[in-house]
Amino acid sequence: MNYRMISYYIGRILLVEGVLLIFPAVGAIIYGDNTLLAFAITIAALAATGLIAVKQKPAKTNIYAKDGYVIVALSWILMSFFGAMPFFISGHIPNFVDAFFETVSGFTTTGSTILTDVEALPKSLLFWRSFTHWIGGMGILVFVIAIMPKTESHSMHVMRAEVPGPTVGKLVSKLRATARILYGIYCVLTLVQIVLLFAGGMPLFDSIVTSFATAGTGGFGILSNSIEGYNSTYAEMVIAVFMLIFGVNFNLYYMIIIKQGRQVLKNEELRWYLGIVAASVIVIALSLISGGTHAADAFRLSFFQVSSIITTTGFSTTNFDLWPVVAKLVLVFLMFIGACAGSTGGGIKVSRLIILVKSGFRDIKKAINPRSVETVKVDRRTVDEPVVKSVSVFFATYMLVAAVSMFIVALDGQDIVTTSTSVIACIGNIGPGLSAVGPYGNFADFSVLSKLALCFDMLAGRLELIPMLMLFSPYAWSRKYS
Amino acid sequence: MNYRMISYYIGRILLVEGVLLIFPAVGAIIYGDNTLLAFAITIAALAATGLIAVKQKPAKTNIYAKDGYVIVALSWILMSFFGAMPFFISGHIPNFVDAFFETVSGFTTTGSTILTDVEALPKSLLFWRSFTHWIGGMGILVFVIAIMPKTESHSMHVMRAEVPGPTVGKLVSKLRATARILYGIYCVLTLVQIVLLFAGGMPLFDSIVTSFATAGTGGFGILSNSIEGYNSTYAEMVIAVFMLIFGVNFNLYYMIIIKQGRQVLKNEELRWYLGIVAASVIVIALSLISGGTHAADAFRLSFFQVSSIITTTGFSTTNFDLWPVVAKLVLVFLMFIGACAGSTGGGIKVSRLIILVKSGFRDIKKAINPRSVETVKVDRRTVDEPVVKSVSVFFATYMLVAAVSMFIVALDGQDIVTTSTSVIACIGNIGPGLSAVGPYGNFADFSVLSKLALCFDMLAGRLELIPMLMLFSPYAWSRKYS
Repeated sequence: MNYRMISYYIGRILLVEGVLLIFPAVGAIIYGDNTLLAFAITIAALAATGLIAVKQKPAKTNIYAKDGYVIVALSWILMSFFGAMPFFISGHIPNFVDAFFETVSGFTTTGSTILTDVEALPKSLLFWRSFTHWIGGMGILVFVIAIMPKTESHSMHVMRAEVPGPTVGKLVSKLRATARILYGIYCVLTLVQIVLLFAGGMPLFDSIVTSFATAGTGGFGILSNSIEGYNSTYAEMVIAVFMLIFGVNFNLYYMIIIKQGRQVLKNEELRWYLGIVAASVIVIALSLISGGTHAADAFRLSFFQVSSIITTTGFSTTNFDLWPVVAKLVLVFLMFIGACAGSTGGGIKVSRLIILVKSGFRDIKKAINPRSVETVKVDRRTVDEPVVKSVSVFFATYMLVAAVSMFIVALDGQDIVTTSTSVIACIGNIGPGLSAVGPYGNFADFSVLSKLALCFDMLAGRLELIPMLMLFSPYAWSRKYS
Repeated sequence: MNYRMISYYIGRILLVEGVLLIFPAVGAIIYGDNTLLAFAITIAALAATGLIAVKQKPAKTNIYAKDGYVIVALSWILMSFFGAMPFFISGHIPNFVDAFFETVSGFTTTGSTILTDVEALPKSLLFWRSFTHWIGGMGILVFVIAIMPKTESHSMHVMRAEVPGPTVGKLVSKLRATARILYGIYCVLTLVQIVLLFAGGMPLFDSIVTSFATAGTGGFGILSNSIEGYNSTYAEMVIAVFMLIFGVNFNLYYMIIIKQGRQVLKNEELRWYLGIVAASVIVIALSLISGGTHAADAFRLSFFQVSSIITTTGFSTTNFDLWPVVAKLVLVFLMFIGACAGSTGGGIKVSRLIILVKSGFRDIKKAINPRSVETVKVDRRTVDEPVVKSVSVFFATYMLVAAVSMFIVALDGQDIVTTSTSVIACIGNIGPGLSAVGPYGNFADFSVLSKLALCFDMLAGRLELIPMLMLFSPYAWSRKYS
């Protein structure tokens, strides 16, 4: 492994984080929050560490896939480590593991919180907390690539390890240009949402942080009862629609920009995504109506929650932990499915679900007629068999990681629904689960071991398993392959 | 499709079922059970249907894989339909759907029951109920092949569709001989267990039906508190050990017979199987001890329950629904894993788990070093890539079928643990789940729709998905491919 290049890259990323921390630091001054020192110490620590790491430009600049994964995994861990410092130093989250959990949850756009009273946090920290969602959403590394002049070959490995889904780099051949375009779309959409929320009467600060959390599909709210607290159907609908928008593959927006809108309508993942949303909204609404909820309310609540969960955002407008079992089950399955590939959302991703379902049907067809040649097709193109296989293996690995984590969390002795949905919500980057970790609950009561396991799950889910699993693979650290 | 051959095969199977029903009918006479008429009507119905179906020997005897799957799926459904008649006609299970559920549960060796008071059933029906486990265990069709003179090419398709796991026909080249050897081993082991239980003081009738349920890894008990009711550590240990024995790939016993015992010890699936059992026993025992259970009791209870669940038998010696969450989670994962391929157990199978885990590691290695050529090896031999892929697809399909079933069962409005574990217990052919379907609960309170969905799951799990899924595939019934 090229350790020099790895530390060089990570150093640059930490420097960028230091720069980004200036925003909440300025906020601390504006709001007179008494958190300025905490931010200043963090920025100094980041600057010192980052500068030491980038001081020596490596002689050998070639890195391999393995180095790319290590850079991604370690930089997310270190970013979260430093990002947790303001919470800890300011004393607002007195336990460092809790602060780390909260920051991992932020950067990975999960939105699970250990805070029992979020409204007690000063505004600068609330801003930083939601800002981590926005930064994490598109991947700090895409950002770094976009602003860092590097030859394509290096960055590709980094980006491949980080950007969700199998569609990286198909947009335009120049990687930096791609990253800039994606980031531009991301900023514009965020801005539009801020304006719409503010125009609807939401305070500016709330509009900004809510839009950050929506854009990153994160889900940290700044009111203790999330979006329900605004009591505004207008705001709910704006947020619900924007969650769906941020759950779509960003390549599709690029296609609209280059006037290939027709292709977008034909996109199979988009159709499945919208189809799943529609079906889920109807099923949940009907189950709520049969439970006595007024039809209009049922559809409003159902639409918001389905949008929130499938995009893995995790906002809530009601305590869905009290919903009928059918509705809860739909939500749990949406947690597994997640958003589209190439979006800011988490989960297994709709495109993988399509391949899984189609390869299931294909195997049945092959059993019926063993001599037939059946391929899995998405968007009318044949999916290569290695991709089909790796998608199936991804699914199995996802389930295995979830299973192992559930054992660790189970040691806490919480009930089985809390135990299992806390893991599902973390590995899928959703945020709330059911029972004790439901929308009105929190993750405060877990043991340190469970919190660390859940941090691992959030990172593993966000980075699509391999980078985090690699850290624990002796094979990766063996000199034989370095 | 060759409908003539299909009906011919099914006819023969129904005739065999008619013959098998003579045993409980004789029992009805011996015990003076007042159920003789019910058995007689059933036997008559089977004889009439069977004879009509086999009357015309088909002119074309060639059948394809598709026909094999259809024969398997339909014959299991029809066997269960006719097998339910004695319960229904005698009036002891007054609802036919319930009787059907109980019989499907029997033949698929699941062991889930709709009976709220099993001890109220007359002995002849109890015998028939447990006998269905024994018949289902090795697959009625293997039996039919073994006693039916047919050329190999036909039977192969039938057997491939039915025998669990990917190891069919590797024993000896002659298929009928294989089936006879497997069946011989099965009978001898059952007999040994009966003798051991009887020698330990269990009544003969109880020894026989308990051994039937053990051999088939079914799990129907004839006492309302399952094996706990015998209050005998000796019986518990005999049953626990025999459950484990029946969860092993039967090919290994054949190897011992032909004096290749060394190969058996090297068998990777066996090592994983025993490793998983040992690890699970320890984890559960420790969690019980930390809950205040005496160490000896903890290991005894844990060993029995682990053995019962991983082999998908489903006997219980305690109400494990009251165990700590860790212990319950271990059991739920064992429900998914299941026994070895080529055994009478259900679940995903240990051999598939090995391939899933290894292909997960392989993909990590490939990510680390993209140019390396990594293959998945089991028993030091490379597993062909199509097998790796089909195992992953099997796993995904298994999860999807479970997910869809959970939605249907969720309509009943039971709690989420009952809903999900009832499906997991049925598709894995285990028997009891948790909460309302725990070891001291039953499946009586589900709606007709849920019961039928669970019947589908039991059959789909027992027949390894494809035959049952095919019945619902328009592709299978299309004339184009017939």
